[in-house]
Order: sequence, then structure tokens, then C-alpha cells
Amino acid sequence: MEILVVGSVAFDSVETPFGQGDEVLGGSATYFSTAASFFAGVRLVAVVGEDFPREHRDFLAARNIDLAGLQVAPGRTFRWKGRYGFDLNEAQTLETHLNVFEGFQPQLPENFRDSEVVFLANIDPELQLEVVRQVRRPRLIACDTMNFWIGGKREALVRTLREVDILVINEGETRQLAGEANLVKAARSVLALGPKTLVVKRGEYGVLVFTAHSIFSAPAYPLEEVFDPTGAGDTFAGGFIGHLAATGDFSEAGVRKATVFGSVMASFTVEDFSLNRLRRVTWAEIEERFRKFQALTSFEGLD
Amino acid sequence: MEILVVGSVAFDSVETPFGQGDEVLGGSATYFSTAASFFAGVRLVAVVGEDFPREHRDFLAARNIDLAGLQVAPGRTFRWKGRYGFDLNEAQTLETHLNVFEGFQPQLPENFRDSEVVFLANIDPELQLEVVRQVRRPRLIACDTMNFWIGGKREALVRTLREVDILVINEGETRQLAGEANLVKAARSVLALGPKTLVVKRGEYGVLVFTAHSIFSAPAYPLEEVFDPTGAGDTFAGGFIGHLAATGDFSEAGVRKATVFGSVMASFTVEDFSLNRLRRVTWAEIEERFRKFQALTSFEGLD
Repeated sequence: MEILVVGSVAFDSVETPFGQGDEVLGGSATYFSTAASFFAGVRLVAVVGEDFPREHRDFLAARNIDLAGLQVAPGRTFRWKGRYGFDLNEAQTLETHLNVFEGFQPQLPENFRDSEVVFLANIDPELQLEVVRQVRRPRLIACDTMNFWIGGKREALVRTLREVDILVINEGETRQLAGEANLVKAARSVLALGPKTLVVKRGEYGVLVFTAHSIFSAPAYPLEEVFDPTGAGDTFAGGFIGHLAATGDFSEAGVRKATVFGSVMASFTVEDFSLNRLRRVTWAEIEERFRKFQALTSFEGLD
Repeated sequence: MEILVVGSVAFDSVETPFGQGDEVLGGSATYFSTAASFFAGVRLVAVVGEDFPREHRDFLAARNIDLAGLQVAPGRTFRWKGRYGFDLNEAQTLETHLNVFEGFQPQLPENFRDSEVVFLANIDPELQLEVVRQVRRPRLIACDTMNFWIGGKREALVRTLREVDILVINEGETRQLAGEANLVKAARSVLALGPKTLVVKRGEYGVLVFTAHSIFSAPAYPLEEVFDPTGAGDTFAGGFIGHLAATGDFSEAGVRKATVFGSVMASFTVEDFSLNRLRRVTWAEIEERFRKFQALTSFEGLD
């Protein structure tokens, strides 16, 4: 199945204790698309400015990512600048320049409207709902959001969530959305808003996947070299949704296996700046790391 | 195999957002012994004051815990007072009164000296080493420690660690002991100090078990009701070492299964104040929760 993704394409400037990257390729839809493209065809809906270079466009197009929905608007591309300390779990945002992203109105090319799998990356929930309305008969809709929308556009977000099958957010966002400190109770409240599956991202502690009747826990891969966590969450979503689209298996077993593939992809992204590690990673490396996740988590049962 | 444990027996006063307990039974050796006693016989070495009531002594003795090494010293029993906020991962210590624990000199009764499994709970590393010297031919020595000893008695701690097979400490202590922010690198440095296995406790995020050639990740059980995290780490150690002693299987597979049993026991402790939940828990409940850990973590492999 083809995956439709709507989100941001950006230039990131990132400082970590291990180095820095200036105006490197970033953005939620970029990380998502690149990770998902290892598994399925991707249709990208986003906006860039006139400064977006040919080389980035060529990189994405070469990866089975359809750029017919990538608008070029007058002005500059979205820019984000951030810094991480030794605790790599949380970025400190230094600068955000929305630029052309500020007036973004997602428009699906006619041939994108039959997409069966849809991922709404972290954008205004009103725009997320606009995208859902433009897709004819999606089989799976997943979305991300953030504290900014949970606090500032709650009603619109709640309307969007009614249309969503899988919500992929982090731990703090789950607690904020539910107004509840206990994560298990918070997850139950969030599932009551519409999504049948809630994926809670916990950074270096992995993910928890909640459904009405089950919980699945997947660790993050313990890495010796974490250079830059930027894009890890969107890469996770790309591997996760990518695997679901490739198999068409949306059962609980399918979701669990896809969760591990999402974690595998995210574990590569953080090993280098920007999309550098995803550019190099091979399918053999992806399968090898999947097997390492099995070795990492397996234990014997009761006799 | 019989387990020898040396550590503290205390009265805890604990406030959490969900209630409070005043001068309830606590202490590292108490939680450890009670959890371990579900799996194997326990020999307790600790000190209490003259105020330690008969009912607590009877509770421990009724659980296959040999109290021949429980000294009664003139004065009052160790008291700790702490508070947890909604983030239940870290306690704020309000008061510590060492009382009789201050002059504690562990003395093993003659019949304790043949113990095959030894757990050195969090006490002065010089005393831990004293205990090791009093045991004849232990097959397995495990220990805990804390930031106070890592910072203040590092040389003594390093000497103790040379004698230790399994070190059980938390994430921050691992980083502090190694002087390294990356947990995988830190774990490797700690293993170089002597222990063949390092168990890193991460509170609600579970545990990571490091050996020279492998990593095992076990989640904590996601609970809807966490009343009081006090003693969770010592309870984990009790279930973990208890299962190792019961099976005598110190192989990697044995350590992994024991890790899950440790996590199972800890998941009960936090469901109520003090040892209240451990007092009630049944073997059937322990096995049922072990199976829930399997359901929580299992996923399908590659085709």
C-alpha cells in the first residue's frame, strides 16, 4: 500500500555535545518519508521555499518518495535551531522560523487521494483534518501531535482524533492530553478519544503500545554512540507505518512487529546527524538490528 | 541454596500523592528478604534497636527468614522519612536517623558462613567486604551501592567490587561510578571493575542487564495504581537473587529469567505501602504476572 504523509520539510541547525550540523536537511515529513521508503512507496505533502536545493529533492525522489505534493512557495524554507546537552532526551529550542510553513495549506494531487495509509505528522490539527477529508477511502490513519496543539487547539485536535486509528505521541504529551499522571490511566483516556491504538514514545526508554485490551513494551536499542536524537520520533513513525503498509497486517501481532521495525529505524537515525545514517543504512543492517532486538528482549518462559 | 543478605532494617515514614505511612516496616534487607523468601531460604544479617516490635520479627521469621544474625542493639531502630511527588521515580529524603545502624558491625553466626549466595545490600563498602571475608566459599556474590559511597568511599567500593559477581545499581549510579554519560559505555567501564554482570535499574522504565557480550532489557510492569515506590529496587533484587538461588542456574538464560522474576516482585511492592502487598501476594499471582511480562514483551520474528 502507498503511504500518504503530510508534515514539515525543514533545515535544522543542531548542536550536541558531540558536534554540530548547520542547516542540514530535517523536518518531520522528511524523516518519516525516508524511513518509510525502506518498506513502501511514499507520497509526500509539504511545503518548501525557493531556497530548497535540487540535491535534497533528488535524494528524496531517488528513494521511492513521490514529490508531486511538495509545494514550492515564495520565501524561505522552515528553519529550526536546537541544542542537546548530555541528557539527549530533550532538545532546547533556540530558534524557530516557520517561514513558508506558516501559510501551509495541504493540497493533495488528484492521484494521492486514493492513498490507503495516511500519516499526519505534527502540524495544526485543523490541517490534519483537511487532509483526512481529501483522502477517499483510507484503510489506516495515524497521526502525531505536540504539547502546543494539545494546549492551544484542543477542540480541533479532539475532532481530528475521532478520525484516527493510531496516535503516536510521547509520554509527556500522553499525560497532558489526558490530564492524568499515571501513564496506564492516561492511555485509557486517550484511547477513549478515538484511536484504537496509542503508541507512547519514551525516547531512550523505548515505546509502549496500548490498545483496549493489551500493552506492548519495546525497548530502544542501547547504543554506544548517540550523536543526534533529532528526528528519532518521526523515523520511528516512518518505520512503524512503513512496515504496516508493506504487510497490510494491522492485527495486534502486525502492530507489534511494526513497532520493532520503527525502533530499529530510529536506532539508526540517532547514530549520525540529520539523515546521514539513513542514507547509508542497508536492508541487511536493518534485518540484523531487528534480530538484535529479539536477542535484547527474549527470555525463557515458566516450565 | 540459602541466601545470606546484609543490609538495613528500618522504620519508614513515607508520603505520596496517594496517602502516607508512618513508621512502617522498611529497610533494604527487609524488602530483599521478604521477596527472596518466595524462592529460597534467607539468612538475615542486620541490626535493630530495642524498639523493634515482636510482630515484625514474627512476620519475617514466619517467612523462612533466619533471624539468627539480626542483632538487637541499645537504642532506636534506623528511621527514614521521605516524600514522592506525582513523578514517582525519585524520593525526596526529609529525614534520616541512622540510630543503631550507625555503629553496625555485621557478625555472621557460625552456621551462616557456609551460605552459597550472598547479597550485600546498600551499606558501607568496607562492611560489605567484611561480610564477604566471613563467608567460606560463596558461589555467587551480588551487591548494591549508592551515590553516597561512590562519591565518598570510592576506593573501598572498588575493592569490594573485585569480589562481586553481580552488581545491581540504578542508572544514575552507573553513570557516576563510570564517569560517563552514555549508559552502554558506562556499563562497560563498570564491568571492568570486576562484576561479570551489571543490572541497571531504571525505575518505571525497567532494567538493563549487561554482560561482556550481551544486553538484556526488561520493562517494568505498567501499573494503573502505583502507591509507593519505596523498596522497589530491593524487592527487585530479592526476587532476582531469590530465583537464581532457587534454580542454581547462573547462566545468561538463568539471569534473564531471574530478572523478570525480580521485576514481577517489584511490581507488587509498589502497589501498596511498606510490605503490605508482599504480605498478601500468592505464588499463583506471581506466576500470572510472569506470564503478563511475556505477553507484554513478545513479538514475532522475521519470516
